[in-house]
Amino acid sequence: MAEERKKIDLEPYGANTTKRLTIKEAEEILFVPFPVLDHGFVRLIDYMGSDERVVQAARVSYGRGTKKVSEDAGLIRFLKRHEHTTPSEKPHTEWHIKTPLFVAREWYRHRTAQYASFNEYSLRYSEPEEDYYVPSHDFIGFQDSSNRQGRIKINVPEELKDFTRNEIIENSEQSLKRYKALIEINIAREIARDVLPVNFYTTFYWTMDLHNMFHFLQLRMAPNALEEFRAYAGTVGNIVKKIFPVSYQAFEDFVLNAEKFSRLELKVIKHMFAGENPENIYERAGLRGRELREFKGKLEKIMALEMVS
Amino acid sequence: MAEERKKIDLEPYGANTTKRLTIKEAEEILFVPFPVLDHGFVRLIDYMGSDERVVQAARVSYGRGTKKVSEDAGLIRFLKRHEHTTPSEKPHTEWHIKTPLFVAREWYRHRTAQYASFNEYSLRYSEPEEDYYVPSHDFIGFQDSSNRQGRIKINVPEELKDFTRNEIIENSEQSLKRYKALIEINIAREIARDVLPVNFYTTFYWTMDLHNMFHFLQLRMAPNALEEFRAYAGTVGNIVKKIFPVSYQAFEDFVLNAEKFSRLELKVIKHMFAGENPENIYERAGLRGRELREFKGKLEKIMALEMVS
Amino acid sequence: MAEERKKIDLEPYGANTTKRLTIKEAEEILFVPFPVLDHGFVRLIDYMGSDERVVQAARVSYGRGTKKVSEDAGLIRFLKRHEHTTPSEKPHTEWHIKTPLFVAREWYRHRTAQYASFNEYSLRYSEPEEDYYVPSHDFIGFQDSSNRQGRIKINVPEELKDFTRNEIIENSEQSLKRYKALIEINIAREIARDVLPVNFYTTFYWTMDLHNMFHFLQLRMAPNALEEFRAYAGTVGNIVKKIFPVSYQAFEDFVLNAEKFSRLELKVIKHMFAGENPENIYERAGLRGRELREFKGKLEKIMALEMVS
Amino acid sequence: MAEERKKIDLEPYGANTTKRLTIKEAEEILFVPFPVLDHGFVRLIDYMGSDERVVQAARVSYGRGTKKVSEDAGLIRFLKRHEHTTPSEKPHTEWHIKTPLFVAREWYRHRTAQYASFNEYSLRYSEPEEDYYVPSHDFIGFQDSSNRQGRIKINVPEELKDFTRNEIIENSEQSLKRYKALIEINIAREIARDVLPVNFYTTFYWTMDLHNMFHFLQLRMAPNALEEFRAYAGTVGNIVKKIFPVSYQAFEDFVLNAEKFSRLELKVIKHMFAGENPENIYERAGLRGRELREFKGKLEKIMALEMVS
Repeated sequence: MAEERKKIDLEPYGANTTKRLTIKEAEEILFVPFPVLDHGFVRLIDYMGSDERVVQAARVSYGRGTKKVSEDAGLIRFLKRHEHTTPSEKPHTEWHIKTPLFVAREWYRHRTAQYASFNEYSLRYSEPEEDYYVPSHDFIGFQDSSNRQGRIKINVPEELKDFTRNEIIENSEQSLKRYKALIEINIAREIARDVLPVNFYTTFYWTMDLHNMFHFLQLRMAPNALEEFRAYAGTVGNIVKKIFPVSYQAFEDFVLNAEKFSRLELKVIKHMFAGENPENIYERAGLRGRELREFKGKLEKIMALEMVS
Repeated sequence: MAEERKKIDLEPYGANTTKRLTIKEAEEILFVPFPVLDHGFVRLIDYMGSDERVVQAARVSYGRGTKKVSEDAGLIRFLKRHEHTTPSEKPHTEWHIKTPLFVAREWYRHRTAQYASFNEYSLRYSEPEEDYYVPSHDFIGFQDSSNRQGRIKINVPEELKDFTRNEIIENSEQSLKRYKALIEINIAREIARDVLPVNFYTTFYWTMDLHNMFHFLQLRMAPNALEEFRAYAGTVGNIVKKIFPVSYQAFEDFVLNAEKFSRLELKVIKHMFAGENPENIYERAGLRGRELREFKGKLEKIMALEMVS
Repeated sequence: MAEERKKIDLEPYGANTTKRLTIKEAEEILFVPFPVLDHGFVRLIDYMGSDERVVQAARVSYGRGTKKVSEDAGLIRFLKRHEHTTPSEKPHTEWHIKTPLFVAREWYRHRTAQYASFNEYSLRYSEPEEDYYVPSHDFIGFQDSSNRQGRIKINVPEELKDFTRNEIIENSEQSLKRYKALIEINIAREIARDVLPVNFYTTFYWTMDLHNMFHFLQLRMAPNALEEFRAYAGTVGNIVKKIFPVSYQAFEDFVLNAEKFSRLELKVIKHMFAGENPENIYERAGLRGRELREFKGKLEKIMALEMVS
Repeated sequence: MAEERKKIDLEPYGANTTKRLTIKEAEEILFVPFPVLDHGFVRLIDYMGSDERVVQAARVSYGRGTKKVSEDAGLIRFLKRHEHTTPSEKPHTEWHIKTPLFVAREWYRHRTAQYASFNEYSLRYSEPEEDYYVPSHDFIGFQDSSNRQGRIKINVPEELKDFTRNEIIENSEQSLKRYKALIEINIAREIARDVLPVNFYTTFYWTMDLHNMFHFLQLRMAPNALEEFRAYAGTVGNIVKKIFPVSYQAFEDFVLNAEKFSRLELKVIKHMFAGENPENIYERAGLRGRELREFKGKLEKIMALEMVS
């Protein structure tokens, strides 16, 4: 299967000359695989546009003559704050990605994006690479009882972690053995794969525009996202930050690190500005249950911010 | 051209029996045109799903057994707060709409939605209805000098309003006369329409899912949206409110009447909780220019809220 | 897990009165599950529009006064022949579907549609139903050596079929046992599912407009589509045929049973009209390899047609 | 307004070095405006991917080791023949376009594409360029009575052409004069533009992937497309042909110059292979009206093909 692997092993193109917009930071990492999880990776294989393209696209509508760098950054920040999204649909990136099947599945399923194009390795055409995902000790946790879709990683005895890893490894090996036994007697690959568990790796190409990329990062870098997926989103996010620095900074300021308050929460904030203790207001204001817990979480985040000196 | 008009004059279907989800409030207004601007209208001609469908779709993923109405509302509010959008992609509405060309154009152009389907009256096939839009006195304003895409409606002398209306009426009448002169000598409709100005009316069908509907309403009900477009969005919004009351309430609480604060603004809020005057912090915090003006606007909105009694 | 299953068990709504377009044939099968494979099903749970809506949407653009049923059918056929697709984006259907994971995955992945909305049972939130797919004897085949993504079902000894089924059953049971062992010690569901193979069943809701539905059916009813997927597409296709009979007939005539010929093939056909044996032309015409084999396949299909009497 | 125009006047970037896929033919025409109609243009301003990228994306799924150029072309032709479209979603092109408003409107409206991103010059922010479209003599025709959406350009007296052009010119000049009069008294631009007819020019950026580009070209290069739009599509098509030569050739062979026959038409063809005169079959076969006329049109196209020598 080593040979199978080679066929998607893209090589960088030699130094070509182009009149296109070029990003120095992107050129440095083009085609370099960034490892994720035990056998996965993420790598940028092409791009079109840059922060500057976002500005050009905005100016065709909002038309301003000035061109200083500081004004460009201001314009990008304005667009992000006011959710004027079409200019950031212009830059595109193309990726080569290797993930466990269960991550790939979520990657496609939730249509995190209005726009996204995929091409994936097919288990109908080809045998799988023999890589499968085994969570490392620090990824293993108990079922979270309050957040029904989460894990809690405190007080998990080492032997339970070993047991979990062992079950997953044995399960993977046995499945692989069965797969090979079926291939051996020439059963069709598209039937044999029925025995493969969802922790086997797959690879795919992925094309995204910058606007939808930020939407993807917002959802998949979030604390409640699947931890294995977050590992990929974090790696992709770091690359995006490097090559679209101004847009990424605006994303951090106005999306990632921003907080939204409902009308009811804004009322409580008004009382707090007047020096009241919020605990005395919640009940009267009708803020309770999950909404109340979430509001307290936001207050805690504010209280943890550094003061302006 | 009266005959042309008739062909899109849909009639309500008699009382049919169905096993589908049915919304009493929607049935009452189905096919009723709600007037907008001088000759336009909006009317609902079909729908699929309801608030209950959003809950069902969420439960297939998040699976909870309870079914009390209060819990359904809580679930819809949770989805909206956390931007879990796929369940609200389930309900669909179908509309028949008549607007000036310049509104129709924006309706399509900004792709306010990931999903939307349109069918429009064609000026290649048919002659236009003879209706054109003339802004009423209270829609006419001067160019806004700070907001480059807006109008300011204070201190506009009545005679300037009359002049404006007159220019638009004469322009429309002359264009229509030329259009008819070209049709008279049998010039192709698709060429003759070159003389028609963008204030002529057109009609189209429009299909939307509920998730993208809210995104549309958020953008088009906003104070900086084109005033003529806002008139349509407001009318559509009222109908949506009537037939998806729980989802609409969540939209009002967590989107329309909510405010988002950047990391920098959150810091200022922390100082304000501590009793400081924000005016003393802006400069140190680096909040300036347009971002500062917008923050002050948000504070004003908070200060205008009624206190919890 | 029986209780989990119940929560998506939608019941038909009692007889409601509506002014909406209603399809008698759809009402008869609404909420009825049609079985597919060993544990799967497909059922229609809602719809909006009908063949008549396609005609209305077309008439808003192409405006013709006449309304006879025969002319409606003619208009729908015209639209299909000329790929005027927007009118058929108007009708929508909503489905509840249960398939093996590997089918669900392809259902989402290939984005067979411009438009489609999904909501799926989540293995992060809930434990799986214990159903898994085991191919019946007549689904099992050897690897096809010419079509690299297919199976060949001739001369497969019964004992190999039994062996295959047995491997898949044992693999599924062992995986399920491990899954339960991990759940037993309270490992998070989103980790425990790593051991589940892709032949386990999942359920989801699926919304489609009629235009994209036909594109989906074209791809998934095709002879080279995955056989398990074809089983679902066939069942969905039968329901669509029943409730959109005119549109479906046009789809059959102008898409499913139609053939397309390249410029080169059209030249060969011209020679055949002149009475020449095509075998004498292929080489001169440069028709060779896979393209030649496919052309011969099309000729065979023509020769198999019944003559007009 | 000359100054307004400048702000979208993109300049080519100097010679940069890149590791990305580069297309020599694209580099030669990057940023060069190709004139269309009297004041319009089309120009390519960026691109990502090439024919080679289509092959790579296909190989990730269909995985074959060989890499000869002839096999690459064969693979691209195979993909096009069998409508495997996702690999051609990988290459992207970015354009800068200037068209009359009525062309721009159709460009957006028909959503010729699953994917397309636009940014347009806004008449709310800025005054229009003073360019308007006047059809040249050879674009002017009478209303077509059989094709209700077309023009017929035979026997149109020169004086009627002059009259038409004159009406359009006078109409444009009067509208422009009124526009300026309203701007003069400082009426908001977004109101003043109500007087502008749809033959005024606008400019926009447009991003497309290659798959949807071909769908766009198929619809807009067709003989029944609006003639002014066809002028743009033809110019875009020529550029696409130059920079994606293999994909374009496959598009020509299997889409543009191909013909599709319905099941009924295939039966008639079978009779023709047997030497029968088709005229004797139509009635018995039930081929009549518009479908019959279209079939005869296809036969004529076949008969006009050169014989294979």
